[in-house]
Amino acid sequence: MDLECASQVKQGLFARGWSRVKALAKNFKTKVFDFFSNVKKLGQEDPRRVVHSLKVGLALTLVSLFYYYQPLYDSFGVSAMWAVMTVVVVFEFSVGATLGKGVNRGIATLLAGVLAVGAHKVAILSGRIGEPIVLGFFVFIQAAVSTFARFYPKMKARYDYGLLIFILTFSLISVSGYRDDDLLELAHKRLSTVLIGGSTCVVISILLFPVWAGQDLHNLIASNIEKLAHFLEGFGDEYFKMAEQEGESKDDKSFLQGYKSVLNSKSNEDALANFARWEPGHGRFQFRHPWKQYQKVGALTRHCAYRIESLSGYLNADIQGKPEIRTKIQETCTKMSLESGKALKELGLAIKTMTKPFAADTHIENSKSAAKNLNSLLKSGLWDDEMDLLEIVPVATVASLLIDVVNCTEEIAESVRELASMANFQGIKTSSVSPEKPKPDHQIQAVKSNSDEAILNCSSFIITIGDGESSSHDQEPEDSSPTMNNITSSRPSPRTAEV
Amino acid sequence: MDLECASQVKQGLFARGWSRVKALAKNFKTKVFDFFSNVKKLGQEDPRRVVHSLKVGLALTLVSLFYYYQPLYDSFGVSAMWAVMTVVVVFEFSVGATLGKGVNRGIATLLAGVLAVGAHKVAILSGRIGEPIVLGFFVFIQAAVSTFARFYPKMKARYDYGLLIFILTFSLISVSGYRDDDLLELAHKRLSTVLIGGSTCVVISILLFPVWAGQDLHNLIASNIEKLAHFLEGFGDEYFKMAEQEGESKDDKSFLQGYKSVLNSKSNEDALANFARWEPGHGRFQFRHPWKQYQKVGALTRHCAYRIESLSGYLNADIQGKPEIRTKIQETCTKMSLESGKALKELGLAIKTMTKPFAADTHIENSKSAAKNLNSLLKSGLWDDEMDLLEIVPVATVASLLIDVVNCTEEIAESVRELASMANFQGIKTSSVSPEKPKPDHQIQAVKSNSDEAILNCSSFIITIGDGESSSHDQEPEDSSPTMNNITSSRPSPRTAEV
Repeated sequence: MDLECASQVKQGLFARGWSRVKALAKNFKTKVFDFFSNVKKLGQEDPRRVVHSLKVGLALTLVSLFYYYQPLYDSFGVSAMWAVMTVVVVFEFSVGATLGKGVNRGIATLLAGVLAVGAHKVAILSGRIGEPIVLGFFVFIQAAVSTFARFYPKMKARYDYGLLIFILTFSLISVSGYRDDDLLELAHKRLSTVLIGGSTCVVISILLFPVWAGQDLHNLIASNIEKLAHFLEGFGDEYFKMAEQEGESKDDKSFLQGYKSVLNSKSNEDALANFARWEPGHGRFQFRHPWKQYQKVGALTRHCAYRIESLSGYLNADIQGKPEIRTKIQETCTKMSLESGKALKELGLAIKTMTKPFAADTHIENSKSAAKNLNSLLKSGLWDDEMDLLEIVPVATVASLLIDVVNCTEEIAESVRELASMANFQGIKTSSVSPEKPKPDHQIQAVKSNSDEAILNCSSFIITIGDGESSSHDQEPEDSSPTMNNITSSRPSPRTAEV
Repeated sequence: MDLECASQVKQGLFARGWSRVKALAKNFKTKVFDFFSNVKKLGQEDPRRVVHSLKVGLALTLVSLFYYYQPLYDSFGVSAMWAVMTVVVVFEFSVGATLGKGVNRGIATLLAGVLAVGAHKVAILSGRIGEPIVLGFFVFIQAAVSTFARFYPKMKARYDYGLLIFILTFSLISVSGYRDDDLLELAHKRLSTVLIGGSTCVVISILLFPVWAGQDLHNLIASNIEKLAHFLEGFGDEYFKMAEQEGESKDDKSFLQGYKSVLNSKSNEDALANFARWEPGHGRFQFRHPWKQYQKVGALTRHCAYRIESLSGYLNADIQGKPEIRTKIQETCTKMSLESGKALKELGLAIKTMTKPFAADTHIENSKSAAKNLNSLLKSGLWDDEMDLLEIVPVATVASLLIDVVNCTEEIAESVRELASMANFQGIKTSSVSPEKPKPDHQIQAVKSNSDEAILNCSSFIITIGDGESSSHDQEPEDSSPTMNNITSSRPSPRTAEV
């Protein structure tokens, strides 16, 4: 009995152990599967990532020829490893980032090398015992000063890496000088291998499927504007439909969520703009393309996104306002939202296709006239006297936020117009219009000089539409819009030439 | 005459030239002056920058002793330069960043060294001609795979630098192996010098005036909440005062602008949270302090800032709404704004002093009852029948946005409460209250599991106050607040122990 029992217990243990092992194996299998599906997704999201990885591999393999190929090794020796290091550290995803790092590294190595050789010459004067003290002092001073310079915002933005390499090279060369007498050769070898590594990176990143930060910034700004457009085009229907069919199952509302990524895109935009400044002319972009203006357009877009964020809260609110009131303003509000959305869509398209954003003007005019209609509707006093103010509040807020959005849209349009003129976007030239209507130009000037304030004070434009005569936007060339519209829409949208 | 004339012209030229030189000199002088005042400002803004720069200088000088001191040089030789490089590259502003980079570099060097030695052994098998081909293949594959891994978001967040160093070390050691037969010693020297450099950085950054990323994150979150509080405390007065004294010169309104920096603080918060996770326990923070919860609090704070951004637009709006209506809701709106502001101030203080945020509860209750009052005021129909709806809209919007803000404040309070319980903030323990009132705990649980959604759907809480019975916040221990309040305020605010 005892034996049987023991064997049963054993079998039980074995069975339990086996099932645990099976569970573990299954768990491991799912994890591995998840991992590989994630990796696949990562590659599919942006195939340029796969290409970039292969490019890095290629550059490293090329540079390691310095070790394998005897004649090359004879001239550089162990210094060849600097070329390998440079490739690993300098090769970045976009051409701009790679170029920026490469140039920073090259110039910093040159400057630091020259200074370090000088420091070494000075240190020698103080004798064998004094030399390390003087050298140590120099290293300390330059490291402290350069490190502090890295906190300086302008330096940090563009030359942070250069300062790092400056500290590195200066320390290495001046300190090595204490042991190595042929310091000039050391400095020279380091500089030339760094240059070889850096130029390998730059050449490969430009020649083989280049990824341009400028192009990415351009696309990001355009798609951010389009995300807001999607929201606004859908908002009116969504908000007023809800009153009619409450409790309906929520089907695909992803277009109402897209704007959320715009709220936090500042750091990404800033980084891309920084890289883009290093890039040479490429595709449709000149060397001195106005990247800064993209940042301004981006800031105004984000500003509009904040308003939309407030607006989106009213889609899910419990109290939706009195149906009669909603119905009364439904048409104008839907029109405001829809026309602002269309205007933004046209602006996004204008950026993407690099054409002047004339097509947006009609929609902006329409949204503004809808806002005026709303004003007169509210003024007209068509309301029954017994209304409950509590039920007006949500509807009034939506209306008011939509007026904000109309104003923000106009701000975005102005900044895009400015971008179009700075970057010479195609389309009918403004000059053919300006002799009769000089004011739009003037207006752009005003925006230009105050654009920094404009970003901060976008909110101050709110509800200025009601009075009609103070608004400077009445001078918009309404008649010219239809023709421009045709021209813009008949132009085929050119694809990105680079990818 | 001609001569005189010529000399006059000469004098004229000279005078003009001289004045230009003087202007240039003056220009240069102002530029230099500007530069130095900027530098001074940079140091005064955060004196830790100066200290950090000196620390970097010290670490570098210490590490260069490997060159100067003969016994040390005997054992490491030229490899000592890896220690110098490591110090330059690894030493970051905060302890967390330095530790993260140091650990990444150390482990990556170890792993890559082991793998590279293995790869070398395999490559040798294929003969003198096959060796570089096999080695090149290995380098290509590992560089491509590791570079691709750097795109994986989780990898990028914590191990980006490690992957970079992995590529670097693997390439260097495996390629050097082709020339250097004593590969193990090379790998060993590189590893030990990297460890020496890394530990020098870590030790100096921890022992000498450490800058803790965790402490910075903690302060940033608290001060962001306080910035919103300043706005809200001032908003009511500012908005309703304006109606009375329009056209008044704008005196110091900086408290109304402070919230703007909150809008874009996400990237900063994310970076600090990432660094903080590397840090050991310090001051009032344990090793596994809930840094992630700070990010949640930060996200909700930003969410509230978006609402405030919309609200701030109405401070400068041209149409301010009918004075009578403004006067009617002035008291309740001012109270809502003020009490939300006070609640946020208490929440910020609770985080700063690391005490449980009981003091905020009273203010939240007050702001909620003010919101209820506003609702009944709006419902009461105390309005004359001839009112112009257009003039109600701005006031209604402000009221509605303030209700939003009250809700957001409550969300922030919940997340701070959660933080307080996760991080064991001081104060009267919840357990003494929970036997009678179990629901607040349950509530926190619910927030915990849904907090990611909560961040997205904060907006869905809008205008749920009106009905009164659906709100789960009625269970708040109102009676306990005054005592807690006393405890919190009598506690001296401890200063940062580290700086």
